Amino acid sequence: MISVVILGAGNVATHLYKAFQASKDVTVKQWYNRSLKTIETYKNKVETTDDLSKLVEADVYILAVNDDAIAELSSLLPFENKFVVHTSGSVSPYDIDKKNRRGVFYPLQTFSKAAPIDFSEVPLCLETLRRTDYALLKKLGASISDHAKRVNSDQRASLHLAAVFVNNFTNQIYRVAQEITESQGAEFDMLKPLILETAKKVHHMSPYRAQTGPAKRNDKKTIKKHLKALDNEHHEAIYKLLTDSIKKTHGR
Amino acid sequence: MISVVILGAGNVATHLYKAFQASKDVTVKQWYNRSLKTIETYKNKVETTDDLSKLVEADVYILAVNDDAIAELSSLLPFENKFVVHTSGSVSPYDIDKKNRRGVFYPLQTFSKAAPIDFSEVPLCLETLRRTDYALLKKLGASISDHAKRVNSDQRASLHLAAVFVNNFTNQIYRVAQEITESQGAEFDMLKPLILETAKKVHHMSPYRAQTGPAKRNDKKTIKKHLKALDNEHHEAIYKLLTDSIKKTHGR
Repeated sequence: MISVVILGAGNVATHLYKAFQASKDVTVKQWYNRSLKTIETYKNKVETTDDLSKLVEADVYILAVNDDAIAELSSLLPFENKFVVHTSGSVSPYDIDKKNRRGVFYPLQTFSKAAPIDFSEVPLCLETLRRTDYALLKKLGASISDHAKRVNSDQRASLHLAAVFVNNFTNQIYRVAQEITESQGAEFDMLKPLILETAKKVHHMSPYRAQTGPAKRNDKKTIKKHLKALDNEHHEAIYKLLTDSIKKTHGR
Repeated sequence: MISVVILGAGNVATHLYKAFQASKDVTVKQWYNRSLKTIETYKNKVETTDDLSKLVEADVYILAVNDDAIAELSSLLPFENKFVVHTSGSVSPYDIDKKNRRGVFYPLQTFSKAAPIDFSEVPLCLETLRRTDYALLKKLGASISDHAKRVNSDQRASLHLAAVFVNNFTNQIYRVAQEITESQGAEFDMLKPLILETAKKVHHMSPYRAQTGPAKRNDKKTIKKHLKALDNEHHEAIYKLLTDSIKKTHGR
């Protein structure tokens, strides 16, 4: 049984708490947050505290807090030589105060308060500064996810950056598509099966092979028609840039 | 029972043929293609022909051919006053020769030769020039899809254009994400659950509400870090444009 203490109460902290609670190999010994109010609904299920001096003994301390808060919170921990990890995609493990053994436990997924998540499908990027700490972190990761892997800081940063593309940028593309359809009184809903199929397609073939459409074919007539139909400068700029990008990728 | 003749042998034609064959309300009386070779594997299941003068009687003739071929093929049809529809997202029903009754039967999905598709989930955009033809087209659509709807030409053009965004452009975003991860030896595979979750999220909330990340928060520090990490001018241009787009949408 691995014992953990969770620090923080955002979406990542909450989903991690639930995943650990559901695992037979992990016990959450304590949940710390600056404000007890945020986690008070859990106080009958787990020991909660807002006092760092009352932190209990555990195998792993998980700092699931904002990137900017990691360094300071880690320096305030009232113990040494324990195993402390953060959950950030872009922060170095060296940002954690060096009085403790340090690592990273980064779940690569988008979390919202409302939606439940199947943690077994969430990729976990694991890193430890001491080689001897890795086995424990791997065991902790494997207790909740089927995709817990060693990922170094450069790789993790590239995944975190790429995640902005496939999550935030893709979502903005969906938003633009909604603006385009609704400007003509068409239903954005009709695009949803295509949105899902496009996402599924790259699970079994590369984005390169999955590509279709006027830009890939360099179908100038259709591209011209589309640019004429776009009456929003901003949508037009996105159309042009991504069309050029596809042409470049496919050697047009 | 509705009888149809399919003309053309591309992905749309082939998937339509299979969907109609599986429906108890439709019979495919004949399949025409310029070259018989392409459809010869089906010759024991359906009458095939490469001779327009041999086209048989049917309730609906479906021109599932390239956009550019619709007008000409329709003018070569050796009959008048029959019901002829095309399957294009961007072509007007007026492009079909006026000697016949005209309409549109546009399936809004991406089709590939290999992957089977559940047609009941495919949105169908229906349009007829004569009001009296609509009931038949609606019945034909409903025989294979749960999402067959009347969509006028302007709406259809906007859906077709928006489809380029959510399909081709999103797919190119995936491609860029793959280039970013692989440049650091990280696995693109680790992004797949996030790709799927992002697509699923807009099925139950708007893209506006689903948005998260540094651009939405106007987190200048992270944005600067990301731009520094992107060593490809082209990736940088996409990052900047979509970050600005998100900021604009969310009033930053």
